[in-house]
Amino acid sequence: MSTTPRYKSYQRIEQLPQLVGEKVTLNGWVANKTGKGKLLFIVLRDGTGICQCVVFKPNSEEIFETAKSLTLESSVQITGTVRSDERSPGGFDIDVEELRVFQLAKDYPITPKDHGVDFLMTNRHLWLRSTRQHAIMRIRASVVKAIRDFFDGNGFTLVDSPILTPAACEGTSTLFETKYFDLGSAYLSQSGQLYAEASAMAQGRVYTFGPTFRAERSKTRRHLTEFWMVEPEMAFFDLNDDMDLAEEFVEYIVQYVLKTRQQELKALDRDITKLEKVRRPFHRMSYTEAVEWLNNNNVKLDKKQPDGSTIQIDFPWGEDFGAPQEEAIMEQFEKPCIIHRYPSEVKAFYMKRDPDNPKVAMAMDMLAPEGAGEIIGGSQREDNIELLEERIKEHDLPMESFEWYLDLRRYGSVPHSGFGLGLERTVKWISGAEHIREVAPFPRMLYRIAP
Amino acid sequence: MSTTPRYKSYQRIEQLPQLVGEKVTLNGWVANKTGKGKLLFIVLRDGTGICQCVVFKPNSEEIFETAKSLTLESSVQITGTVRSDERSPGGFDIDVEELRVFQLAKDYPITPKDHGVDFLMTNRHLWLRSTRQHAIMRIRASVVKAIRDFFDGNGFTLVDSPILTPAACEGTSTLFETKYFDLGSAYLSQSGQLYAEASAMAQGRVYTFGPTFRAERSKTRRHLTEFWMVEPEMAFFDLNDDMDLAEEFVEYIVQYVLKTRQQELKALDRDITKLEKVRRPFHRMSYTEAVEWLNNNNVKLDKKQPDGSTIQIDFPWGEDFGAPQEEAIMEQFEKPCIIHRYPSEVKAFYMKRDPDNPKVAMAMDMLAPEGAGEIIGGSQREDNIELLEERIKEHDLPMESFEWYLDLRRYGSVPHSGFGLGLERTVKWISGAEHIREVAPFPRMLYRIAP
Repeated sequence: MSTTPRYKSYQRIEQLPQLVGEKVTLNGWVANKTGKGKLLFIVLRDGTGICQCVVFKPNSEEIFETAKSLTLESSVQITGTVRSDERSPGGFDIDVEELRVFQLAKDYPITPKDHGVDFLMTNRHLWLRSTRQHAIMRIRASVVKAIRDFFDGNGFTLVDSPILTPAACEGTSTLFETKYFDLGSAYLSQSGQLYAEASAMAQGRVYTFGPTFRAERSKTRRHLTEFWMVEPEMAFFDLNDDMDLAEEFVEYIVQYVLKTRQQELKALDRDITKLEKVRRPFHRMSYTEAVEWLNNNNVKLDKKQPDGSTIQIDFPWGEDFGAPQEEAIMEQFEKPCIIHRYPSEVKAFYMKRDPDNPKVAMAMDMLAPEGAGEIIGGSQREDNIELLEERIKEHDLPMESFEWYLDLRRYGSVPHSGFGLGLERTVKWISGAEHIREVAPFPRMLYRIAP
Repeated sequence: MSTTPRYKSYQRIEQLPQLVGEKVTLNGWVANKTGKGKLLFIVLRDGTGICQCVVFKPNSEEIFETAKSLTLESSVQITGTVRSDERSPGGFDIDVEELRVFQLAKDYPITPKDHGVDFLMTNRHLWLRSTRQHAIMRIRASVVKAIRDFFDGNGFTLVDSPILTPAACEGTSTLFETKYFDLGSAYLSQSGQLYAEASAMAQGRVYTFGPTFRAERSKTRRHLTEFWMVEPEMAFFDLNDDMDLAEEFVEYIVQYVLKTRQQELKALDRDITKLEKVRRPFHRMSYTEAVEWLNNNNVKLDKKQPDGSTIQIDFPWGEDFGAPQEEAIMEQFEKPCIIHRYPSEVKAFYMKRDPDNPKVAMAMDMLAPEGAGEIIGGSQREDNIELLEERIKEHDLPMESFEWYLDLRRYGSVPHSGFGLGLERTVKWISGAEHIREVAPFPRMLYRIAP
């Protein structure tokens, strides 16, 4: 019954290895043009790869003249025969037999010369076509696929948590707010965790994966105001299970990208030997061990004195780690390291205290090597309703907003755990991008909302 | 090197068919409890299925007493031997040898009696545990997986379009607004299409898939204020290609769910013979043909007169279809129908006019059978910059906000097309749910922002 759709009647550059010697029709854009006497070389890109198309004047004056008129990023359809040629960018040549021009581009603004970052960001809609950005976007898509395949294949049910939420987990200062009809204010979600917890009691193991928002005035290379986060949540998982799963998960992602995106990693000059080392078991240390390591290795903390001067002190147990501590710890490692059992004081209200030491929370962060920093934060959740209520009071949170969340401890409470992995930070690490703005197609930052 | 994680040391109910005769440990919740003399039957659910657990008093008085105390939704760990038993719900029994209680639930609010919708929606975090909601959520997850597999497997690159956008495509009246630092207002995205178009010029074929927002005061069974939409966008596709792809896509989704979610469709009493019929080719008719059909079949339009009375008239060419027209047209069909080439007046500014008849736009909608209504809207996009600029002026849109979008026509413009499929409407159709509020885990509607 079903016929072959017309759009399958032309070929894409990624199919060329299977089409040597055959006549193909490609649609794409002019990525480069060079010439020598009676020869013209057009580098065509079609989104799946690049291919050199050769125009020989004696074959057709008309095609040669048309080809000569082509400018950077003009759109064309080229028909010709595929030839394998190792010298050619992409590994294949096409002898052009037909050439149709969709549109001649005039003065494409992005040229091989160096442009400033602001110019490129303002032209993000065009910058995405460049080799480097193209490769990063494809790696991003593969990371997303790896994430979803991992959970779908391991008995997790996807649950899309809402973006519009009525109340804030932890204060409203870093939340984007909007008016919600006659119901007052709604806030853009910072995390789907609480919803994932409810869903885990229904489905056992779930993950939520969508955009999250932080209205933070941060300007670092690692902050976006809008970013994607995947948050698995598992009934009957304790902190060790949580860490085991996080290791399996990150290993799977990195190895999947290595397997499927060789070409893109090469285009980015990424040192893949570094990624090949990302194999379980990862490193693990408790927060307390990490503090000892810092102090044994003379990694000091800058401490402001009342008189304005700064002195260097031993890292005091109880304080949260910042980037300098995390970087110092990670310098010794080529694989990710999980730091667990942080002081409860610096961690969120919903985290379970360690039964062996109530001063620490059953929390864990995974730090990636090569200066990539924290990519995962997670914990075992408090499953005791009295302790959770205490914590909500201590944190000065509105109890009535959490009644539904407390219900999860009233009706069939179970040990459960989860974590969140930031998509963009992970893509930044794997792709080796210098700044997080490169790993989102249209990044949103403190000073950037367009295009 | 890698060891087996602890969490793999217990079993999940979906694994039981492979474990008959073996001793297993299950973790879950009490979904039902009945008794007869020295026998107690606990129906356990763990998110992957249900299993009857049999407690026989002479085996252990202690376990029997503990089991007797169990209430609805109490959380337990049960160890015992698996027996195949066709009479048992789920098809398997377990002879309970060990029973550990995590927590006894007290007065679980959702009971087998009928509850009002408002009560259930207020308790959505618990309602998700019921058989019906559990099944719908799993079908939803399968629809998402089918969508992503289809595109990932057909040479599309996923591109996550931004949620926070600077300007509105079509007025701000149905947009959620938020303050964006010192840059003025940002709006929650209604569609990722314009960003997908830019990305298609970089990647060839792309899809964006994420939450979208409409601040509409609608109260129908088919409207949410927050819903997920998947939007493929393809360079070098014309309207026919677009329709071909949409048919392949929807057939794939429906057949995938049929293949993977038999159990859930059964739990919902879904008539799957209706879904089995969703095979290509679907029906197609032009808008003009559809108007003729309505008028030939005496489907009249109610028209208000100046004096307040209503008369019935023939459907006038040029007016947009509403639900009554769409429903009348679909009554004759068991498969989806694509209606194409709508009057340009009723369609968006970016749609290409038909070169053979500029009064119609190269637009298409796909209507699903069984009263499900529109699930897809799409079009070939205007690729001529002068015509597009004219359209922007006619629609009174701010030209400067669209400069970046016009760049896509300045630099290598190509014929291109795309469409959007609403996830929740598709899940509603496939699952047979009566109201769209059942197909989102935490639905957002005019009067509902919590939990």
